[in-house]
Amino acid sequence: MSDALFDKHRARFERAQQACRERHAWSAFPELPSQVADAEAAQARGLAAFRARLGRRFEIDQPGSLGWIGEEVSPYTGEPLGIAYPQADIEALFDAAERAIPRWAETGARARIGVLMEAVDQLFTGHVFELQQAVMHSAGQSANMAYAGSGANALDRAIEALVYADQALAAVTPAARWERSFGSSRIALAKTYRAVPRGVAVCFSCATFATWNAWPSMMASLATGNAVIVKPHPGSVLPMAIGVEVFRRVLGAAGHDPNLVTMALDSSAEPLGKRLVNHPKAAIVDFTGSAAFGSWVEQNAALSYTETSGCNTVVLESAEDLDAALRSLATTMCLFSAQMCTSPQNVYLPRGGVATPGGRVGADEVGARLAAAISAVGQEPRRAAMILAAIQSPATLDLIGRMQDEGALRGRVLLAPRAYGHPQFPKARTSTPLLVQTDPRQGDLYREERFGPIGFVVECADAGDALAQACGDVARHGGLTAFLYSRDESFIAAAERGYARAGAQLTINLTGPMPLNFAAAYSDYHVTGLNPAGNASLTDLAFVAGRFRIAQSRRPAAAARAN
Amino acid sequence: MSDALFDKHRARFERAQQACRERHAWSAFPELPSQVADAEAAQARGLAAFRARLGRRFEIDQPGSLGWIGEEVSPYTGEPLGIAYPQADIEALFDAAERAIPRWAETGARARIGVLMEAVDQLFTGHVFELQQAVMHSAGQSANMAYAGSGANALDRAIEALVYADQALAAVTPAARWERSFGSSRIALAKTYRAVPRGVAVCFSCATFATWNAWPSMMASLATGNAVIVKPHPGSVLPMAIGVEVFRRVLGAAGHDPNLVTMALDSSAEPLGKRLVNHPKAAIVDFTGSAAFGSWVEQNAALSYTETSGCNTVVLESAEDLDAALRSLATTMCLFSAQMCTSPQNVYLPRGGVATPGGRVGADEVGARLAAAISAVGQEPRRAAMILAAIQSPATLDLIGRMQDEGALRGRVLLAPRAYGHPQFPKARTSTPLLVQTDPRQGDLYREERFGPIGFVVECADAGDALAQACGDVARHGGLTAFLYSRDESFIAAAERGYARAGAQLTINLTGPMPLNFAAAYSDYHVTGLNPAGNASLTDLAFVAGRFRIAQSRRPAAAARAN
Repeated sequence: MSDALFDKHRARFERAQQACRERHAWSAFPELPSQVADAEAAQARGLAAFRARLGRRFEIDQPGSLGWIGEEVSPYTGEPLGIAYPQADIEALFDAAERAIPRWAETGARARIGVLMEAVDQLFTGHVFELQQAVMHSAGQSANMAYAGSGANALDRAIEALVYADQALAAVTPAARWERSFGSSRIALAKTYRAVPRGVAVCFSCATFATWNAWPSMMASLATGNAVIVKPHPGSVLPMAIGVEVFRRVLGAAGHDPNLVTMALDSSAEPLGKRLVNHPKAAIVDFTGSAAFGSWVEQNAALSYTETSGCNTVVLESAEDLDAALRSLATTMCLFSAQMCTSPQNVYLPRGGVATPGGRVGADEVGARLAAAISAVGQEPRRAAMILAAIQSPATLDLIGRMQDEGALRGRVLLAPRAYGHPQFPKARTSTPLLVQTDPRQGDLYREERFGPIGFVVECADAGDALAQACGDVARHGGLTAFLYSRDESFIAAAERGYARAGAQLTINLTGPMPLNFAAAYSDYHVTGLNPAGNASLTDLAFVAGRFRIAQSRRPAAAARAN
Repeated sequence: MSDALFDKHRARFERAQQACRERHAWSAFPELPSQVADAEAAQARGLAAFRARLGRRFEIDQPGSLGWIGEEVSPYTGEPLGIAYPQADIEALFDAAERAIPRWAETGARARIGVLMEAVDQLFTGHVFELQQAVMHSAGQSANMAYAGSGANALDRAIEALVYADQALAAVTPAARWERSFGSSRIALAKTYRAVPRGVAVCFSCATFATWNAWPSMMASLATGNAVIVKPHPGSVLPMAIGVEVFRRVLGAAGHDPNLVTMALDSSAEPLGKRLVNHPKAAIVDFTGSAAFGSWVEQNAALSYTETSGCNTVVLESAEDLDAALRSLATTMCLFSAQMCTSPQNVYLPRGGVATPGGRVGADEVGARLAAAISAVGQEPRRAAMILAAIQSPATLDLIGRMQDEGALRGRVLLAPRAYGHPQFPKARTSTPLLVQTDPRQGDLYREERFGPIGFVVECADAGDALAQACGDVARHGGLTAFLYSRDESFIAAAERGYARAGAQLTINLTGPMPLNFAAAYSDYHVTGLNPAGNASLTDLAFVAGRFRIAQSRRPAAAARAN
């Protein structure tokens, strides 16, 4: 199979390989929408393309269509998108995927990666602004996040997964000559080694950040020769449907079977998830979503790569500039209304207060200042819209309400949530954060992910207890990210050891405009796999190396070397 | 931590890296016992060391000893070895292992690998002939196999695992500087990445070939920073106990905690296996043994690497030299009385016979000639002893008897088993093979591993059916190796595709003195992980990449680069 597409994208791929090796800052794409070539026209085309999708069928020419379903509602307008997607007979999808695999598997690794690099390129060049609108009106992200986090950075993570797949595949030589003596005889064998895909992968995507995990998961499976059935969250389908369309088009144009990528959509009333995971042909499951279903997936799937949730922790021991720290924390706890698996939720601090150059600041005052900093984010509607954006699901508003009641009973409400008025979309579903002060006796309140703009200030006996509580909660209940403010290098070293063991990725003493939970492709590992918040990491070798196996064949070769 | 031991073994390690890349024939050790330096004296010392172990306690200075157990009986002499090993309190072993991990994990990867290369070297230089005797008198292997397969090649597989562990660890840069703009601010972060071990690994070894899987499994876990509790089969303890002793001595001498390697022994009456696997501190389980327990391990272990069993298949479609093929098959079916997970068991051939240059040879005649070739191996006692060696367990003799009865009822006994007289050990437990002719209607007879010298000739409708039956049996019931004789290149290509999908490592048209199931370290992948015969492969990146995870820490760095 031709490597022409790989050659077309070789320079970008090799640059990505370097970035993965060195883990410095790099992106294949402009950081900001305004930096895209011919940005205004491209954005207008994207908006038009998105609008053209609304209120009609989204045709996917895939096998086994049984009817049409779709239940997406824009968090910004409150209106249904009105898009109907094919409801698929899953037997037909698995059969078609399985039929497509052998020829795809026999295509060389570099040829497969070339096709996938082309898909990445077309997703960006042809669809990034259409995807931006699709993500906004399904997930509720801000325009900037929908471009950067769900667009450019998600596609960078896709390329990153291709780099690691390539590395794992390249570790297997395709052929060898082996020769040694047995007694007085010389035996020479010609050996061939082939990468054999596992089979059909099922990729679950989540409602609030569909593309960011789904693109790299799909890439990891496809690059290693598998087929993928995408199973989007029924509330957030359009970004994945556009992706499926692009993958199928690029595969077909390159002479491959488009059924290597199909979509199985369900409804919230009749979920398909367990049937897909338990299907005898489901060889791999990638899952992003709830901890409960994720844990079921880990126990039931033949092979699973999961990223679920946990309680992301912050330890405030001491700070050089406490207000700067609290501003960064506040912004990050507000970012996309904390509907990110990396959003900090629990802030642990010593009852005796936080040391600063100006003396110790009492715990109550720290709580009050954090509440004020969070409150400030929601004051100015334009800034609120950029940072808080919208709430994806009505269920999140219910949870905020319940947590406010619980918080008042079992702690103190430092900041009450309220809807803010979105300047562009007056009907947007919004909420500023709830912040509750409590302590470890009320641990069941905060020792799990409370999805949405819900934060807890946890008063601990002292700094050592704060760190122990935080690391213990992560180890037992899961956690992806962790944040620390401390001026004490030995405390920092202890926190690095503790969080490494607990398995949360740690950010220390960061202030300024970078969101604390910003995770950069090629540089930041996402999820460790060491605690209940997931078993996989984006992207390490383990994320790709098990998606294929090695089969060998050997036979006698001429005993004398030709050369 | 010092890399001095790594430097000492660097040349050997780098040579092994090259062999893994190119997969040519190489060994770090002499192929034959006679080639070892000062061979005769070394063998005499090994024999003396072995004899000194007999009839006494095997002291291991590990925590939590509760008493003394041991039930090994030599398959060659029929006498108990009389060795009593510490019976350990498994809580004490897990606790000690867990305590040893943090410092071992913080030791650099190359320093760890240096210590492990030293252990390999001492196992060979100081113990290979002692291990040879230990393997003979626990597993029943011949002297040559105990030296080569259980000695040199097993230690080569250990080095091979270290090479892949090094590759996976080296893919993670220890530190990076990351810098980009957010708005008008420049953010510079110093990032560190550390490999975090999973925790305590439990390594089960089997009765007939303990070292071959155990050394590489232990290496894979230890090199990635984990501790290992070895759980030997109660019938075959001594080789592993010697190994545990050497690992502990080398670790201690290098300044590490010897409790990184301990041994948990049980008895056949009171097995410990499930308690070890279900232990909350058991993070990794390596298992070699029965398919039934292996499947339970896969479902219950936090993370498992298994190699169990299946029905290894032979397809006889046509042959250039049928007698040479049948001789090779016969020898391989006799080798160590087929007590190897790679031994061929089922020979599928077309009912119409096998094509040869001299015309088609009828199926009955092929069966008869195979029986004759097998029978010839057992005729001459010295040759029989070298090839068939001894039967490890009395249960195998029972199974041979039951299979003979079943075979007579549901097929035709082509060759009846008999004890042969071992020239050196007159009381050796021996049996020449049973060979039964049958057909796919009696599939339940041969569609599982019938452990020991038991073979089946399966008459199929035609060559296509023979291949389909064989590949189907492998896919559904497991299979590690496969063997094919064919002069038809298109049939060979179909077999390569079919077996690659089914997941058996295929050897084609091999005749001559090399055992057909010989698997060379650095060159042959052992087990694919694609069928029920195991989920792991010795050794690919997937065998090591999941044994550690990556935790990162990042904090502000000076914004301007120093250089």
